[in-house]
Amino acid sequence: MLSLLTGLLPMQDDPVAALGGQVNMLWVVIGAILVIFMQAGFALVETGFCRAKHAAHVVSTNFAIFGLGFIAFFFVGFPLSLSALDMTGYFGGLGAAVGSPLIGDGNWIFLFKGGWALSGGGIDAGVLALFLYMVAFMDTVATIPTGSMAERWKWGSFVIWGLFCGAIYYPLFAAWTWGGGWLSKTWDTMGLGAGYVDFAGSGVVHTVGGVAALAGAIVIGPRIGKFDKDGTPRGIPGHHIPMAMLGTFILLFGWFGFNAASTFAATDVQFATVATNTAIAGAFGAIVAMLWITKRTGKPDPGMMANGMLAGLVAITAPCAFVNPAMAAVIGTIAGVLVIEAVFIVEKKLKVDDPVGAIAVHGVNGTFGVLAVGLFANGSYGGGWNGSDVEGVKGLFWGDAGQLGAQLLGIAVLWTVIFGVAFAFFKTQDTVSKRMGKGGIRSAEADEVEGLDIPEMGVSAYPEFVKQ
Amino acid sequence: MLSLLTGLLPMQDDPVAALGGQVNMLWVVIGAILVIFMQAGFALVETGFCRAKHAAHVVSTNFAIFGLGFIAFFFVGFPLSLSALDMTGYFGGLGAAVGSPLIGDGNWIFLFKGGWALSGGGIDAGVLALFLYMVAFMDTVATIPTGSMAERWKWGSFVIWGLFCGAIYYPLFAAWTWGGGWLSKTWDTMGLGAGYVDFAGSGVVHTVGGVAALAGAIVIGPRIGKFDKDGTPRGIPGHHIPMAMLGTFILLFGWFGFNAASTFAATDVQFATVATNTAIAGAFGAIVAMLWITKRTGKPDPGMMANGMLAGLVAITAPCAFVNPAMAAVIGTIAGVLVIEAVFIVEKKLKVDDPVGAIAVHGVNGTFGVLAVGLFANGSYGGGWNGSDVEGVKGLFWGDAGQLGAQLLGIAVLWTVIFGVAFAFFKTQDTVSKRMGKGGIRSAEADEVEGLDIPEMGVSAYPEFVKQ
Amino acid sequence: MLSLLTGLLPMQDDPVAALGGQVNMLWVVIGAILVIFMQAGFALVETGFCRAKHAAHVVSTNFAIFGLGFIAFFFVGFPLSLSALDMTGYFGGLGAAVGSPLIGDGNWIFLFKGGWALSGGGIDAGVLALFLYMVAFMDTVATIPTGSMAERWKWGSFVIWGLFCGAIYYPLFAAWTWGGGWLSKTWDTMGLGAGYVDFAGSGVVHTVGGVAALAGAIVIGPRIGKFDKDGTPRGIPGHHIPMAMLGTFILLFGWFGFNAASTFAATDVQFATVATNTAIAGAFGAIVAMLWITKRTGKPDPGMMANGMLAGLVAITAPCAFVNPAMAAVIGTIAGVLVIEAVFIVEKKLKVDDPVGAIAVHGVNGTFGVLAVGLFANGSYGGGWNGSDVEGVKGLFWGDAGQLGAQLLGIAVLWTVIFGVAFAFFKTQDTVSKRMGKGGIRSAEADEVEGLDIPEMGVSAYPEFVKQ
Repeated sequence: MLSLLTGLLPMQDDPVAALGGQVNMLWVVIGAILVIFMQAGFALVETGFCRAKHAAHVVSTNFAIFGLGFIAFFFVGFPLSLSALDMTGYFGGLGAAVGSPLIGDGNWIFLFKGGWALSGGGIDAGVLALFLYMVAFMDTVATIPTGSMAERWKWGSFVIWGLFCGAIYYPLFAAWTWGGGWLSKTWDTMGLGAGYVDFAGSGVVHTVGGVAALAGAIVIGPRIGKFDKDGTPRGIPGHHIPMAMLGTFILLFGWFGFNAASTFAATDVQFATVATNTAIAGAFGAIVAMLWITKRTGKPDPGMMANGMLAGLVAITAPCAFVNPAMAAVIGTIAGVLVIEAVFIVEKKLKVDDPVGAIAVHGVNGTFGVLAVGLFANGSYGGGWNGSDVEGVKGLFWGDAGQLGAQLLGIAVLWTVIFGVAFAFFKTQDTVSKRMGKGGIRSAEADEVEGLDIPEMGVSAYPEFVKQ
Repeated sequence: MLSLLTGLLPMQDDPVAALGGQVNMLWVVIGAILVIFMQAGFALVETGFCRAKHAAHVVSTNFAIFGLGFIAFFFVGFPLSLSALDMTGYFGGLGAAVGSPLIGDGNWIFLFKGGWALSGGGIDAGVLALFLYMVAFMDTVATIPTGSMAERWKWGSFVIWGLFCGAIYYPLFAAWTWGGGWLSKTWDTMGLGAGYVDFAGSGVVHTVGGVAALAGAIVIGPRIGKFDKDGTPRGIPGHHIPMAMLGTFILLFGWFGFNAASTFAATDVQFATVATNTAIAGAFGAIVAMLWITKRTGKPDPGMMANGMLAGLVAITAPCAFVNPAMAAVIGTIAGVLVIEAVFIVEKKLKVDDPVGAIAVHGVNGTFGVLAVGLFANGSYGGGWNGSDVEGVKGLFWGDAGQLGAQLLGIAVLWTVIFGVAFAFFKTQDTVSKRMGKGGIRSAEADEVEGLDIPEMGVSAYPEFVKQ
Repeated sequence: MLSLLTGLLPMQDDPVAALGGQVNMLWVVIGAILVIFMQAGFALVETGFCRAKHAAHVVSTNFAIFGLGFIAFFFVGFPLSLSALDMTGYFGGLGAAVGSPLIGDGNWIFLFKGGWALSGGGIDAGVLALFLYMVAFMDTVATIPTGSMAERWKWGSFVIWGLFCGAIYYPLFAAWTWGGGWLSKTWDTMGLGAGYVDFAGSGVVHTVGGVAALAGAIVIGPRIGKFDKDGTPRGIPGHHIPMAMLGTFILLFGWFGFNAASTFAATDVQFATVATNTAIAGAFGAIVAMLWITKRTGKPDPGMMANGMLAGLVAITAPCAFVNPAMAAVIGTIAGVLVIEAVFIVEKKLKVDDPVGAIAVHGVNGTFGVLAVGLFANGSYGGGWNGSDVEGVKGLFWGDAGQLGAQLLGIAVLWTVIFGVAFAFFKTQDTVSKRMGKGGIRSAEADEVEGLDIPEMGVSAYPEFVKQ
């Protein structure tokens, strides 16, 4: 990411370069706006797939998470996520304290010593554009567990998660990768391709969110009635299919900002390739999932179609700048199958209750996306990525096994360290809450049976519609 | 369109021209994103105007059509729609095989021999930007019949339509017009103005979709209970007015990408005129329709207001770059009346059941939009259009009867050849399905009475809300 | 604003400046599109917070207002709002007749003598881009009273409001401020800072709309059943919380166009600062309101969270370009408290019934936003604003008490003159209607009890869902 940021420098002597920098900043801001709008998409998908009696609660967690994560990221998360990055050349004094990769030379976690609350002399419009883009990415992570833990999450517990995610949880893996930390330097330290490569965040955002969704769902336990006594899962249909479909379309719309503006530059026309690859993977994901679920169950389940599109979008997010359109179609196809099988495995084998499929969509397909860079990257883009000397990011099928190694190492860290951090967070929070006599992170049983709307939020989502 | 594409060339020696090309590509990609989001608008309008028992089915057809059309267009539709265009100068080798107009020198339908699945040496970011924009336009066509055939369309039959539309149906008229084919050359072959002119697709998109909506609705027949035994139509109210209104606003929002980004260039500031004319026609369409339906029935029917706005938008789509703002108001005014009268004629005279008014909105007002170019174009824009020698596209009221002739010829082709292709497709599909013992393209009667959600999709749209 | 418009000049000799002008125009058009989409947000928020039996009526007023205000602004409001502005240098002959500030030299209200219906020789793409942006702002004003007067407003009366707002009401204060009129010149006439400063319209849009919402709610009176006989207000819960939440997210999304594109230039990278400040204030507003209402009532009421975000966005709208990020957080924090207290005061003290909180959100927080410029502006931006000789707009806390004076004068005008105009309009309309035997601007009592959908609109919003 570092090398991309030069495009955000409007204050250049050459008037054409200056105008280019202004246009690039505009593209980043437009991208940020699109990504922020994805919060609405998550809200609708998750609410639509849940039950009416919890709808005000589910939509409110998805609403409040925007501000909760935002505030924590504003105060501390943003500088922490850039803590390994020497920003001196780009944004004045913001990152002057640093320059060395996190982990590997004694700087174990976060280094940075300034920039809290976007204050300090080096804060200019370029830093603020970067902040706006990054905060939107962080909020995507934060909102993923609101799906897997829906219908049984106590409001106060959820609030703590939002703050933790924005302040610490998201910045950790982000600092190690996009922030210039040790995973981005494995090209140097271990000779692995261009180091960990993740164009727009299949790993940094979606897998990080997905493993938190899994950890949270394990700690909080399944909804009452989800599993029979013998462990057989029961279907609990979502209460509003059109709402979920609209949410999916909003996510598709916002995803173009997520991926295509991750060039950080309109002057890098690769954004057009990225946008098209994104659309291709989403389209294939949706249709292949439709075919696969029809083969499995006989019906083109709308929920699986929606999750198929999202799976394709998640999977293409890391490799979108590095693969041919035909490979984007392959990635979307695999994602469309993978998401359905993953939903079944999570539910039937792991006995984990994930009301909206967040683990399958973001965790599993995010992981596949990180892997896909190591397999399908064609070497035509990404020269010098992470400061390496590669001429372009190149996967195994184009001849570079080292890149695959870098990706596998990233995946290993995600599913051990990052999953571990998430699990420890939820477990600790639950234990402390119970020890304090507050009953843990889960809502009271009576509230869950009644529906969380009135007990937790004080209002019903639909006070006038008669429900069954 | 051909002449516009020069703006998408970022690889120019002059740094200012190069930056201009990059900005132009950004505008096309942003435009594509907006048009893709229109799929959500169509989904909400069509679902809101249908009944609750079919809502999961209707919203799912509108969801799946995005991917179905997309995949077919990706594999074959895109190169076919450009088959008459010499793309050599613009996109490397993509269109090297061709150059002659379709029909007229022995090349009757499609010529192109490459570019399948976006593969081939000439595919660069510019081609991919163009693909993304075009695929979104194609998907607009594909989703129009999902409205007129709603509540009675068998899922498997619908799937075939989506593939057919993306692969063959949309590309045909597109190749003849935007693709540089024979209708675009009538300035040369027949001396008609600048040949067929359709800035953003009143004809190429909306009428093409509208005649398919009519053909499909005729073949599939009216919904059970729509007409009394004596043929009197009965009103079947939509189940969710706010949903339809939101969909209409989303369509308005996306339409700015549809029309204004059809300059293919931010360096052509006509995009601002286009955007404003688009808004004017939509505003007048909505308000005039409100007044007209109040005059007709005594109430400002929300559905007619929404369709009035959409009618204004459809009608301005072809002429938006060529007319004065005051003429945009006139076009919107006429559209607001036309759509209501057309809805009544389709229902009461033709006895065709179109649950959402797609034929009136897209077919009738699309046709009016094509005609409007030939009447109201003021000659100030469009010099050299289609490779002609006109100084600007000029309609009858500004002195060029030839342009009106070119438009009327296009309309004649739309309502004979293109309608015929659509009708033949649906009729053949229905007949083959019946001969194979699968009962035709229409859902089983029992399923339709119950509502298509459970029988076709396996889930109810609203399993918890009690319905009347 | 005047000085900003130079950026919209694409027709410059220097090719870099010309391209910059084209990019700036693109940014304004994209901004306009985003602001127009806010109409959908208002529609959903207001409809969601009202009752199901009025939902088709409420959503339809929010739909129709777009076109009603638009048409009036198209015919007369646009040139009137620019009536004090010498547009000669920017847009050809559009504003050639004028140049002197309104009020102060005998030109009391509107001066302009041309440009009706966007006709005249000086209308070019730049003027049309400006029109599109301005019309969207005007429509925001127009749609605010549809909230406070919801559930009891006769359709025909509402239509007149829409036309009045677009033609006269919005243009008045706009001409005095953004249009170059007397409030913008108080730096010269009274020595007050840079004169009235309101970057994107906390005052010009939101307070103007908010005082109309108050005036209208007073004249039309509370809903049947809102107040007990002793004046105690009763809660009337909104019928669809997810709808209101989606609307709020759409407003957040569109607000980036509202504020950030008010630089009128992508070449002025302050747009990135503006966008980030906007997001900060919205995030803090939402979370602080959540905490405050929990403290007040024990529950994190979703409606107050949504209104908290909107309050933060309204309050930052005037100062967004002039304050540090940390001050944006302070402004959002204050707004989050202020909106809740204001809702209670309006309801419990003033005994005014405002179903959606429009007065508190737009009126009170808009006023706070205008004030905030006079307190928190840091002097780093806005040199020469309004033609003044300030090096930057500077508030009291950064040393300029004069700027606070200019803002307070603006506030005084808003709450006396502009409120008075709105009140006189509604009162006159009501009185005339009653004298004509049409019963005033309020719906018939029986219609209100039944719900306005069938009596006023002829259709029910949800004809199939069983309601309590």
